[in-house]
Amino acid sequence: MSGPVVGVFDSGFGGLTVLRALAERMPWARFVFLGDTARLPYGSKSQRTIARYAAESARFLVEKQGAGYLVIACNTASALALEAIEAAVAVPVLGVIEPGAEAAAKQTKTGDVMVIATEATVASHAYAAACQRRGLRGVEKACPLLVPLIEEGWTEHSVTEQVLRIYLDELLAEAAGAGQHPDTLVLGCTHYPLLRGMLERCVPEGVTVIDSAEATARRAAEAMQEEMSQRVGAESGNQPGICCFATDSVAKFERLGSRFLGHAVGEVELVDLGG
Amino acid sequence: MSGPVVGVFDSGFGGLTVLRALAERMPWARFVFLGDTARLPYGSKSQRTIARYAAESARFLVEKQGAGYLVIACNTASALALEAIEAAVAVPVLGVIEPGAEAAAKQTKTGDVMVIATEATVASHAYAAACQRRGLRGVEKACPLLVPLIEEGWTEHSVTEQVLRIYLDELLAEAAGAGQHPDTLVLGCTHYPLLRGMLERCVPEGVTVIDSAEATARRAAEAMQEEMSQRVGAESGNQPGICCFATDSVAKFERLGSRFLGHAVGEVELVDLGG
Repeated sequence: MSGPVVGVFDSGFGGLTVLRALAERMPWARFVFLGDTARLPYGSKSQRTIARYAAESARFLVEKQGAGYLVIACNTASALALEAIEAAVAVPVLGVIEPGAEAAAKQTKTGDVMVIATEATVASHAYAAACQRRGLRGVEKACPLLVPLIEEGWTEHSVTEQVLRIYLDELLAEAAGAGQHPDTLVLGCTHYPLLRGMLERCVPEGVTVIDSAEATARRAAEAMQEEMSQRVGAESGNQPGICCFATDSVAKFERLGSRFLGHAVGEVELVDLGG
Repeated sequence: MSGPVVGVFDSGFGGLTVLRALAERMPWARFVFLGDTARLPYGSKSQRTIARYAAESARFLVEKQGAGYLVIACNTASALALEAIEAAVAVPVLGVIEPGAEAAAKQTKTGDVMVIATEATVASHAYAAACQRRGLRGVEKACPLLVPLIEEGWTEHSVTEQVLRIYLDELLAEAAGAGQHPDTLVLGCTHYPLLRGMLERCVPEGVTVIDSAEATARRAAEAMQEEMSQRVGAESGNQPGICCFATDSVAKFERLGSRFLGHAVGEVELVDLGG
């Protein structure tokens, strides 16, 4: 069985953690991944700029690569540019925020959820809003040092653990100050799954770590299975597999990408979006 | 006496350390600063991309803002895009690499120089080449965690000191392995002057810290004084002072910029370079 083309978009290569989860659930699908590495990081940019960059990237995946379904494997773009992307392309678009909040809602017993993310994601309060829509209370914390530490490869380094504990202490203090009793921590950045082991050691007992990447892949697989079941026998001719594009730094993408994808990313093709 | 317009360019606001040094030496000049914040950081991007961005930014300063002299207050752009900038504009252009290497040459007794910088600056080996042209041996080290730590405001934090000591130990080990006896450390990134106090505590005794920002300001002031002396009496009508532009994140620029400039940056004007 060959499936439709799933476009997966991120500002960099952190979204490869989402692609990894997607490919595990949908080995029959063809994935086209675009990392807008020439213009990363989105996390410190304004909504206006992020929306423009993300819409251009989405159009590349749909119009040039034939994606029939789009996963925004970037929390910042999901938080700030989902509407702009939906307006730019005519295919279903899934971000990482809603599936992450939904997974937290299923997990939490106290109704109090903590979220760690980039500056721009936190400033958007997209997770807090998604929690609120589900009757949960969300407290968010920007952790701008974690991405550079992960990209430096210090995922098991004592410095990273110190930084993580500082951020978590501040977050727990803020939650306590608001009279909350959080039992769930959402990883609101696609880089963070590489710190999952360390995070699970550092959170207080009774706090469950939720990976938005996994939650998103689960949701996408459900949507795709449904679509597939509606066109049984309609072979698309697309070969299953993964194909990666980047707007810059192909060498760095190839070098670091495997840490996020879990295996070699293969050859990465350079594209110019005219930025 | 009113002077010509000096354009100062950086990918972000780190270059405000250079602007600060320039303004201290040339209180009679008018400075126009552009931070290409929509497309930072340059440090992790390819030469092709950096050259295009830098040339566009240089043209803005010269063609739209009337700069008659250009200081590239960004090590990465100086290392990778100086020729592209010189080709793009018709005014004198000064980067930070040559003045930094020149200051190191004046300082060192052993002839062995250490340089810390971003990934892209180190990958270009621009400092090593500039040292070599002066008969010095340069050993370079990329320190990708320092900029995020500085932007987090952790300039006196124990975590930053640990990271700094790890980088310096690796750099000193590399120099020793090459049979070198470095007595000079060049700060090859405009963010690093904010760590100068900590750096001076962390380097071995007998190692002098050289700030490229200061060296560049000294060179620019000499060039401008010379130009000024050639047109005595020719009032340009330009008011002395500082005017800042950014391609994005004006709020962040205004908030963080003062740490680098040493005083409030005033109102920052948003410009669109069409990236």
